[in-house]
Amino acid sequence: MSTYVLIHGAWHTGKELASVAASIEAAGHTTFTPTIKGNGPSDSRDVGLSEAVCSIVDFFVLNDLEDVILVAHSYGGMVITGVADAVPERIRRLVYWNAFVPNNGESVNDMLPRQYVDLFESIASARADGAVALPFPIWREAYLNDADLATADHAFRHLNPHPIRTLREKISLNVNPAEVPIAKSYVNCTEDISLPHHYPWHPRLSQKLGLFRLVQTPGSHELCFSNPARLAHALMDAGRD
Amino acid sequence: MSTYVLIHGAWHTGKELASVAASIEAAGHTTFTPTIKGNGPSDSRDVGLSEAVCSIVDFFVLNDLEDVILVAHSYGGMVITGVADAVPERIRRLVYWNAFVPNNGESVNDMLPRQYVDLFESIASARADGAVALPFPIWREAYLNDADLATADHAFRHLNPHPIRTLREKISLNVNPAEVPIAKSYVNCTEDISLPHHYPWHPRLSQKLGLFRLVQTPGSHELCFSNPARLAHALMDAGRD
Amino acid sequence: MSTYVLIHGAWHTGKELASVAASIEAAGHTTFTPTIKGNGPSDSRDVGLSEAVCSIVDFFVLNDLEDVILVAHSYGGMVITGVADAVPERIRRLVYWNAFVPNNGESVNDMLPRQYVDLFESIASARADGAVALPFPIWREAYLNDADLATADHAFRHLNPHPIRTLREKISLNVNPAEVPIAKSYVNCTEDISLPHHYPWHPRLSQKLGLFRLVQTPGSHELCFSNPARLAHALMDAGRD
Repeated sequence: MSTYVLIHGAWHTGKELASVAASIEAAGHTTFTPTIKGNGPSDSRDVGLSEAVCSIVDFFVLNDLEDVILVAHSYGGMVITGVADAVPERIRRLVYWNAFVPNNGESVNDMLPRQYVDLFESIASARADGAVALPFPIWREAYLNDADLATADHAFRHLNPHPIRTLREKISLNVNPAEVPIAKSYVNCTEDISLPHHYPWHPRLSQKLGLFRLVQTPGSHELCFSNPARLAHALMDAGRD
Repeated sequence: MSTYVLIHGAWHTGKELASVAASIEAAGHTTFTPTIKGNGPSDSRDVGLSEAVCSIVDFFVLNDLEDVILVAHSYGGMVITGVADAVPERIRRLVYWNAFVPNNGESVNDMLPRQYVDLFESIASARADGAVALPFPIWREAYLNDADLATADHAFRHLNPHPIRTLREKISLNVNPAEVPIAKSYVNCTEDISLPHHYPWHPRLSQKLGLFRLVQTPGSHELCFSNPARLAHALMDAGRD
Repeated sequence: MSTYVLIHGAWHTGKELASVAASIEAAGHTTFTPTIKGNGPSDSRDVGLSEAVCSIVDFFVLNDLEDVILVAHSYGGMVITGVADAVPERIRRLVYWNAFVPNNGESVNDMLPRQYVDLFESIASARADGAVALPFPIWREAYLNDADLATADHAFRHLNPHPIRTLREKISLNVNPAEVPIAKSYVNCTEDISLPHHYPWHPRLSQKLGLFRLVQTPGSHELCFSNPARLAHALMDAGRD
């Protein structure tokens, strides 16, 4: 069986992926769900993308991880792209789940619609801690549109303020994703409108992977809350050889 | 539980939504399925969009409707946009189901592909009653493409000629939909090709709502005939808080 | 009941559609799965598109086929377009299943992304037999992305080198598909990335049919291997009156 490392998105920690990981473990695989530096409960929010990437590279080294199926959600796509650039020999396949795919020199903000960049910057500038929080109406309508209100409320209470420097910082890569000699998959949840469908995750960002395997499943951006078992199956369809 | 008002599309009356309403009532809600002025069996077809809108505003007042989840199909999107502009305080959420979303000054014809505008005008000009009828081959292939022929035949016999002035008349709004302070959802049937997929309902028209919740379901433009229960569930996923 | 003739795509023969045909026969229909000239085990690969088309026209005549629901996969779309131009009176409906739709004077290469044209030409020029083979990583990731590795391996071993002249040769038609007075359907497998989703089968090619019925189903380009029964049902939804 395989080793899956699941990398969360902005406003999340590894804990929010516990149900997904449980379904993957039930199929016989080993899973890890580390929290990226800057998203831990006691972490400073004055953290940039390179530190975020380093924290996961360190996690790989510390746990001596090899032959990994490395999965990322959303912002986590920036992180696994950096990890794959640093330690490609430890990775069997990259799986982007409605995740950003940067080329060298790109930031999350470079791939976001203008209105979200402006909104997030204005929220961050009204705070003193270098973080951005997500307004509930956006969360409920555009992130967790496939869940009931109780699920959306409950999940919202577990979000953490996200270090905004990680969205601004441009990634530094030796090799762009399309040229990375590692197998790649993209999991697209078909009702994900956290990026609007006229400026979508797939195929706008997925095509930057070059040759990749597409897996689609019904679901919102936050299928980890609305149907973690269905998401786990999509990730395993994406992660298998 | 909630109050759902279902507004039909062109060529339909409220009666064609009876099965959908029954599924929504079975879940404990109250439903209303009024017929828009101009589509009733004995109505004159010399009716424009403002009269159509007024007839539903009147229906709200007459029935003292408050806290309504107001759902519209296709042409009905014009009508509920006008209703929401007139009596926003009576509406809890707007649900557009493969429906037109006009900004101030726009008509249905402004959002239709040129070939449909020309076809509908030429059909209407060959009649004497100010109405347009839908040719069966278009109905069967592009409107009810997910049903068998018997269902398509049966539903076709229940269509009524549609007042063409409602397609030409530009709507007059105080506030465009994106700025209306009411929650909004868009239900997209993924096999709906009544508008061609290179000039689609979603995201071309849905994005005019500003922040909205997306719900998708397999189905044609006329899922009310091919699978009313599945449609009802999509409408309730869209209509809940 | 109806007569279905199923025309395979590039690298295939009629044999690979046996499971699909069996499901269609189980519903009471008659099926034929001829192999196009140039794809048979002992055929020369020095074959062009006109010879390919003629071989299926001959098959119609030899078997005295009338009132046919003529289904094509991928490259087979070129062939049935040519057959419909030659013997329209024998065809009840055309069904394109993630298939090319040429207008007069177009070739497969005219509808392929540049990188595939270049790749196929470079593979063919490295061989001596006028054929192109598909590299396994592309097959596995972009053609059979919804299957497990064992299925992808097994199916790959049944592929045959495809005559490259059939991809280069421009078709000669009396009437373009949109004007052909035969009913038409397009079956789109929603995870088909054999053509990239930013340059897709549907609606880019399907819209060349003019009025057509859309049927969609989850699945990759090679749903005939990953789920032949599901494909058969989609083809029958597309093929019925």
